[in-house]
Amino acid sequence: MVQSLRNSGDVLFMMLGAVLVFSMHAGFAFLELGTVRRKSQVNALVKILSDWSVSTVVYFLVGFPIAYGISFLMPAAQLMKVQGFDLVHFFFLLTFAACIPAIISGGIAERAKFWPQVLAGGIFVGLAYPFFESLIWGRLSASGGQPTLLQGFFFGTFGAAFHDYAGSVVVHSMGGWLALPAVFILGPRLGRYGAAGKSHPIPISSIPFLALGSWILAVGWFGFNVMSAQSYTGISGLVAVNSLMAMVGGVLVSLVISKADPGFVHNGALAGLIAICAGSDIVHPLGALVIGGIGAAIFVKGFTFEQEVLRIDDVLGVWPLHGICGTWGGIAAGIFGSEALGGIGGVRFLSQLSGSIAAAAFALVCGFVVYFAINKSVGFRLSATQEMQGADIAVHNIDAYPEETVHVGQ
Amino acid sequence: MVQSLRNSGDVLFMMLGAVLVFSMHAGFAFLELGTVRRKSQVNALVKILSDWSVSTVVYFLVGFPIAYGISFLMPAAQLMKVQGFDLVHFFFLLTFAACIPAIISGGIAERAKFWPQVLAGGIFVGLAYPFFESLIWGRLSASGGQPTLLQGFFFGTFGAAFHDYAGSVVVHSMGGWLALPAVFILGPRLGRYGAAGKSHPIPISSIPFLALGSWILAVGWFGFNVMSAQSYTGISGLVAVNSLMAMVGGVLVSLVISKADPGFVHNGALAGLIAICAGSDIVHPLGALVIGGIGAAIFVKGFTFEQEVLRIDDVLGVWPLHGICGTWGGIAAGIFGSEALGGIGGVRFLSQLSGSIAAAAFALVCGFVVYFAINKSVGFRLSATQEMQGADIAVHNIDAYPEETVHVGQ
Amino acid sequence: MVQSLRNSGDVLFMMLGAVLVFSMHAGFAFLELGTVRRKSQVNALVKILSDWSVSTVVYFLVGFPIAYGISFLMPAAQLMKVQGFDLVHFFFLLTFAACIPAIISGGIAERAKFWPQVLAGGIFVGLAYPFFESLIWGRLSASGGQPTLLQGFFFGTFGAAFHDYAGSVVVHSMGGWLALPAVFILGPRLGRYGAAGKSHPIPISSIPFLALGSWILAVGWFGFNVMSAQSYTGISGLVAVNSLMAMVGGVLVSLVISKADPGFVHNGALAGLIAICAGSDIVHPLGALVIGGIGAAIFVKGFTFEQEVLRIDDVLGVWPLHGICGTWGGIAAGIFGSEALGGIGGVRFLSQLSGSIAAAAFALVCGFVVYFAINKSVGFRLSATQEMQGADIAVHNIDAYPEETVHVGQ
Repeated sequence: MVQSLRNSGDVLFMMLGAVLVFSMHAGFAFLELGTVRRKSQVNALVKILSDWSVSTVVYFLVGFPIAYGISFLMPAAQLMKVQGFDLVHFFFLLTFAACIPAIISGGIAERAKFWPQVLAGGIFVGLAYPFFESLIWGRLSASGGQPTLLQGFFFGTFGAAFHDYAGSVVVHSMGGWLALPAVFILGPRLGRYGAAGKSHPIPISSIPFLALGSWILAVGWFGFNVMSAQSYTGISGLVAVNSLMAMVGGVLVSLVISKADPGFVHNGALAGLIAICAGSDIVHPLGALVIGGIGAAIFVKGFTFEQEVLRIDDVLGVWPLHGICGTWGGIAAGIFGSEALGGIGGVRFLSQLSGSIAAAAFALVCGFVVYFAINKSVGFRLSATQEMQGADIAVHNIDAYPEETVHVGQ
Repeated sequence: MVQSLRNSGDVLFMMLGAVLVFSMHAGFAFLELGTVRRKSQVNALVKILSDWSVSTVVYFLVGFPIAYGISFLMPAAQLMKVQGFDLVHFFFLLTFAACIPAIISGGIAERAKFWPQVLAGGIFVGLAYPFFESLIWGRLSASGGQPTLLQGFFFGTFGAAFHDYAGSVVVHSMGGWLALPAVFILGPRLGRYGAAGKSHPIPISSIPFLALGSWILAVGWFGFNVMSAQSYTGISGLVAVNSLMAMVGGVLVSLVISKADPGFVHNGALAGLIAICAGSDIVHPLGALVIGGIGAAIFVKGFTFEQEVLRIDDVLGVWPLHGICGTWGGIAAGIFGSEALGGIGGVRFLSQLSGSIAAAAFALVCGFVVYFAINKSVGFRLSATQEMQGADIAVHNIDAYPEETVHVGQ
Repeated sequence: MVQSLRNSGDVLFMMLGAVLVFSMHAGFAFLELGTVRRKSQVNALVKILSDWSVSTVVYFLVGFPIAYGISFLMPAAQLMKVQGFDLVHFFFLLTFAACIPAIISGGIAERAKFWPQVLAGGIFVGLAYPFFESLIWGRLSASGGQPTLLQGFFFGTFGAAFHDYAGSVVVHSMGGWLALPAVFILGPRLGRYGAAGKSHPIPISSIPFLALGSWILAVGWFGFNVMSAQSYTGISGLVAVNSLMAMVGGVLVSLVISKADPGFVHNGALAGLIAICAGSDIVHPLGALVIGGIGAAIFVKGFTFEQEVLRIDDVLGVWPLHGICGTWGGIAAGIFGSEALGGIGGVRFLSQLSGSIAAAAFALVCGFVVYFAINKSVGFRLSATQEMQGADIAVHNIDAYPEETVHVGQ
């Protein structure tokens, strides 16, 4: 009975985590929907759900086997070992993998072709992401209890493996840095920058939906971080409260430096959450507050810098948000995780710095290769006419509010 | 302590399931709200919440006692046996029962009278549904461990009882087939079909709200299916992942055959989930993918057939969605549950076919009797004037967006 | 292993409760957003998230130590005792404390200055609320197992301590009665009452968002009440079902007496839930139904009385909803908790009455002092010009739907 309770606890724990992070994908959808123009809202919704679905099939068949060496191509009765723990474990890790296209989606919004972006997402979730995942968390990360390959290098060179508890780097920075070449290759939306490079910000459609997306993401994030323990008895209240404190740090800093701008405040919460994932199990709650606050400052300043100085039309700011804040989270775990700053220790700054840089570089290369190839072969951008119409009509043949625009025989 | 942990696990497990499925009712509300016209959005919201509330009282006092022979008319101290497990068990099963009026609501939207539809829902949840439930799952399904009555017939005749793990048939097909006579008796909305039978599709109001409803339903569905184990140690990771795979199959198939139509894609996810309930504990995840995909094809084609050929104005398509896909789910469990197709076995195709048909027939008869009687006695349809005004103003005396329509002294 | 399972169960239980109640804050945001005018929607969103964030820091550093005598100013390794239970316990109780500014926010909507209201919230969450909390639930409530101070007085005088299982009084009535002086000092929105005191109701902006808020609150409420057990093995199915029944009672009564008004029906659900918190562990489900029904009647009648007779422009009706219904909940536990009415007993009517009145009086005094001081020093109300513009533009420099209002070079 005790073993049965333990197994059931593990399965329930993973399942709850998976469901919480699955719900975050609704958050991605509404965050994007609220941030784009009304003529691209349907496209945001369909992209997120389609990317999720392709990710599921690809990660089930290819990605998860690559990352962890576990295949599900056997009769269902055999999958029921330990009440199907491997299956919910897959489900939980899928919810992470599927964040990759969901993150990119916000950067390339309003002007990317539908199927090419689905294809790119499938390649990342099936191959690029699980390969890096296997190096940091999976079957290539250790052998016989000893770190090997990339983790072995960090361990041998700097004295500790790269620590990324819940994926600031493996998930978020990966997504954000993959998005950068996509956004770059795609180019800005029509009218975003004038002839002389003058910036014409494009107004967003709905702050209530943007905020709804942010709330859904923030709530689900507790599954993202807490269930990263991946076993019931590994649950840690510290992870939960550090996630909370980082989110709060993100809100407060963005509140002050953006002068209470709703877009920055609701994304600032996410910046804090992204930054805390890596070190959520080892830093002090006050360290988490600072990590999150710095994350939000990076986002607010980075977004403005990206848009106004670099002139990159990254619609949701996914590069500064997931990319740079994710990288910051990896590095921050090496600072605030130290015992000197009240942390639990066991991390090395140089391991964290190197691992974070390695992920960004890997993502930049993969993103560039994939999007360049897609752009050259099938094309990545809607025609100017389609973009003017809006992705909703052009791709999905319907508007987000048909009753307002269609008037048929009434 | 071990017994106490087990009891607490059971109560928590049922409670989490109940809360997840309770939240699905918000999903029903927003799915309907987004699909109807703006003049009927308030009505959608109030119907769902009122039907839920009437269902609670009726199922507490009558339905649950009919189905399981357990009454709660005793002092609270006695209800606390095993930490109140019977109560949360009731709560969980109520969330299923209350799906009946929530499903029907989407079919009869925009032109049904308010209180008569509440009354019909109460009759189904109090009497018709629990009677069938008792035959398949409840106190009339077995005696001394042996199947009796309907289940005994299936067992004796075909070699296995009818298997419906989480209610493709008992819940969804019941709701969908009950709705068909209601929609038929009510007739189409004014203007839906022209004089010569020409179809004039009525544009929907809000795809974002439709999608929000679908997402809420999909997230809650993991409670619907996983917690159908009804005991903590019965949890199965296979059920979780099969639910996921069927949803994904539904999305992908509807994505392709509808050419990325957002309404079909978001309902396609639900079609997959409806189809997998029955066999979610016994099929292989790839079987689930196929079951869900076929479910979505049935829905997309069935919806178009219903609306354009049969000329039935089933606003949310609840007959093809819950009715036919639910029936398909019951049958599919008999196909993909077999060991030959990687399933766990223990099911018989003819049991599944017969049980699925029996449920549809039972629902058709009950639905026809109740709605015919209501229509003849108190009337079931709003007057033409009320329908033109919209149910919101006619029934609830307020519009969904009062600030836009009312201008009082400002 | 058994101890480890128990500890993990406790941490998971508190974490789930905390996450569920955290999500309720999104519900507060959307309930307010839907009820105010479009020009104040952004303000509603930013207020709730900012108040939450300030509450977190203040309650972490000051409030929780006051209420329970536990500080977190020690290295992270020491916080991991019992897997960090104290931390998730803090998180759970924070979600209650942070309801105080979230409740008040709805009363003072559309015309309060931003930072002064944040300041007031911080004072309540850091000092006033935890002091009262410590008297009823915390370190000042008992000593050596014996009730002391206020609880000792109730116990000694009336024969039982004051019973408030999940905070009808400690949380909701506290918030509602704190809001009353704030609303009173602030005065009504411009145009709400004419020169001769004539009432001009201000139409609300969005019933769908109001309903979304209500649904989110209702779902999260099961965490609020069920997890108030604060230990895994203390879970009670009775609490879950009583919460449900009270909500349903609230819906049904408001449905009938408001003639199916959507605002009253969705707030009636909340009135029922507020009223049941105190006695949710000791009353019979049918008692809960009645408690919730009476709560909704109090709200519907109280709201109208407040607005039309007292001429108090309490925008969301938070005084009748949280204040009076909360007080009713405290008293009702003393009535329906008795064994004579099917309850579990152990409560005294006079303890419940006195405790409920004490909380209201304490809140009225604190609210008056704080808001009077704020009003006299930094000012509490936006200028008439700002109010006409709307808080969104005046405070946040942006509208809720920028695309509709801003037209930049497109």
